[in-house]
Amino acid sequence: MALTVVGSIAFDAVKTPFGERERMLGGAAVHFSLAASFFTEVRPVGPVGDDFGTEQFELLESRGIRCEDIERVAGGQSFFWRGHYDFDLNVAHTDDTQLGVFGEFEPKLSPAAQAADTLFLANIQPDLQRQVRAQCGGAGFSGLDSMNFWIETAKDSLLAAISEIDCLVVNDAEIRMLTGESNLARAARAVMAMGPRAVVAKRGEYGAALFTGDQGTEGDGGEHSFFALPGFPLEDVRDPTGAGDSFAGGFFGYLDGSGGDLDEANLRRAMGYGTVLASFNVEEFGTERVARLDRGEIDERFEALRRMTQFEGVPAPRD
Amino acid sequence: MALTVVGSIAFDAVKTPFGERERMLGGAAVHFSLAASFFTEVRPVGPVGDDFGTEQFELLESRGIRCEDIERVAGGQSFFWRGHYDFDLNVAHTDDTQLGVFGEFEPKLSPAAQAADTLFLANIQPDLQRQVRAQCGGAGFSGLDSMNFWIETAKDSLLAAISEIDCLVVNDAEIRMLTGESNLARAARAVMAMGPRAVVAKRGEYGAALFTGDQGTEGDGGEHSFFALPGFPLEDVRDPTGAGDSFAGGFFGYLDGSGGDLDEANLRRAMGYGTVLASFNVEEFGTERVARLDRGEIDERFEALRRMTQFEGVPAPRD
Repeated sequence: MALTVVGSIAFDAVKTPFGERERMLGGAAVHFSLAASFFTEVRPVGPVGDDFGTEQFELLESRGIRCEDIERVAGGQSFFWRGHYDFDLNVAHTDDTQLGVFGEFEPKLSPAAQAADTLFLANIQPDLQRQVRAQCGGAGFSGLDSMNFWIETAKDSLLAAISEIDCLVVNDAEIRMLTGESNLARAARAVMAMGPRAVVAKRGEYGAALFTGDQGTEGDGGEHSFFALPGFPLEDVRDPTGAGDSFAGGFFGYLDGSGGDLDEANLRRAMGYGTVLASFNVEEFGTERVARLDRGEIDERFEALRRMTQFEGVPAPRD
Repeated sequence: MALTVVGSIAFDAVKTPFGERERMLGGAAVHFSLAASFFTEVRPVGPVGDDFGTEQFELLESRGIRCEDIERVAGGQSFFWRGHYDFDLNVAHTDDTQLGVFGEFEPKLSPAAQAADTLFLANIQPDLQRQVRAQCGGAGFSGLDSMNFWIETAKDSLLAAISEIDCLVVNDAEIRMLTGESNLARAARAVMAMGPRAVVAKRGEYGAALFTGDQGTEGDGGEHSFFALPGFPLEDVRDPTGAGDSFAGGFFGYLDGSGGDLDEANLRRAMGYGTVLASFNVEEFGTERVARLDRGEIDERFEALRRMTQFEGVPAPRD
């Protein structure tokens, strides 16, 4: 199985109450790829500038990430984001965004990227997401992230993009904004009526919720149609940048790596791996923690998460 | 087993986007008692005025609630709260509060109330909570709720009250405010260092989290020390007033009714019953839904909640 992701490949400047970094590897496709790399072969698609050098490529390649579809634009600058967080780490404040080479991006996927079994369209302009989706028509499972900015400025394109994918993965506030429905269960159902068979609502420190298939009637939630996990409880959170992308990388990476099995139990395990990857991501700045992670640590935390969310005796691991 | 609760016994006027009621039965001790009544014998303690009449007593007694410690003050007015909610049902806006007979309340528990096995101190002035705690010294398990107002105006009294109970049950923002610690896991640990063996963080629509015993070292969460449940997903939420008190009633009611077993598995089931009672409470205004609830509906929703939160096959019910 193989996974293609399109999205920003960037440098970030971040300041939190617990430290700061003036220039570090970042971007949605980077966080996603690092998280997914523990489960499957992942191929990020996107442009970088001259400033993206050997050090960055080597970090990605050290995790087995296939970098052939990272397009290096001569004379260009990589996407750059500067932001900060106050004591409420749930809220990112953007201080500067420089699109750089991303401003002229025209996706041209290699045959290998086009042949992916699983596709993730990270948060970029929705018409670009649709172009990538069209080039990757054979993917059996596809996901999409977006943000309030595109809901406000390119809603028709975004709705068209959503109608073409299997699983929407956005913040719960964005699901409400997209549908104009304040009740999350109703909002998720409205999204599924547009095409996707699944909706993941990211909830920051409160974790994530998965809506699938029939939502049932009021109160009963339907059969196997709702699942939720809390965020993994951490006493030290240093930088939440990339948490949502790491979640998505763990989720789609696990699904692709486990053979694309989309039954409810496997989707729930994927939610667990997404939660675990997001939790490691926020322990340190940028990609620092995930870059030196190993699969044993991931599985150990997955079992800890299982123990923290089950009513009774801990079932034996199935994987 | 028997359960005593002290707190407001009130009339509420509530307006939400889904309707309004000009005067309905309410108050923390009422919502708590109705929820707990499905599991054990519960005895609310508190004053009411002349306006609290046969209709209100009959509703409580229809659920088997023991009303001997509801003190009817001749010539007095019952506690009254008027509030409204906008489309974000997580935020209550208070428009009016009239303490009425609660302004002169001096708790005098009957021998039966004093003999309770389990005690809950709902959100009232912390010195009153301490007086009740002192009169109910034999209770093997005690809980306490509070609010931002008491943290701001009576913090020393509140800290003393917290040091005398077993389980703090407050909103997550209040745990942070109380401890001055923005990280919830650290804040819960700080509360347990004051005395309580357990902390429940209520999180509105995101559910509730339980911290118990040793918090372990960073990242591993300790052994059986953290448990979290999402709010039960509902497509129709009409009035969130009393949700937190209904949660506490389900939680402490179940623990008392199951014989005071405080092992981790029973605490987790209690979290489930708290979640279920809160979810019924918000489906209609005030006490309307819970007043006509039956135990079969509760257990059915508990099983639905279990299915929505477990990674794998649904275990057979143990109760």
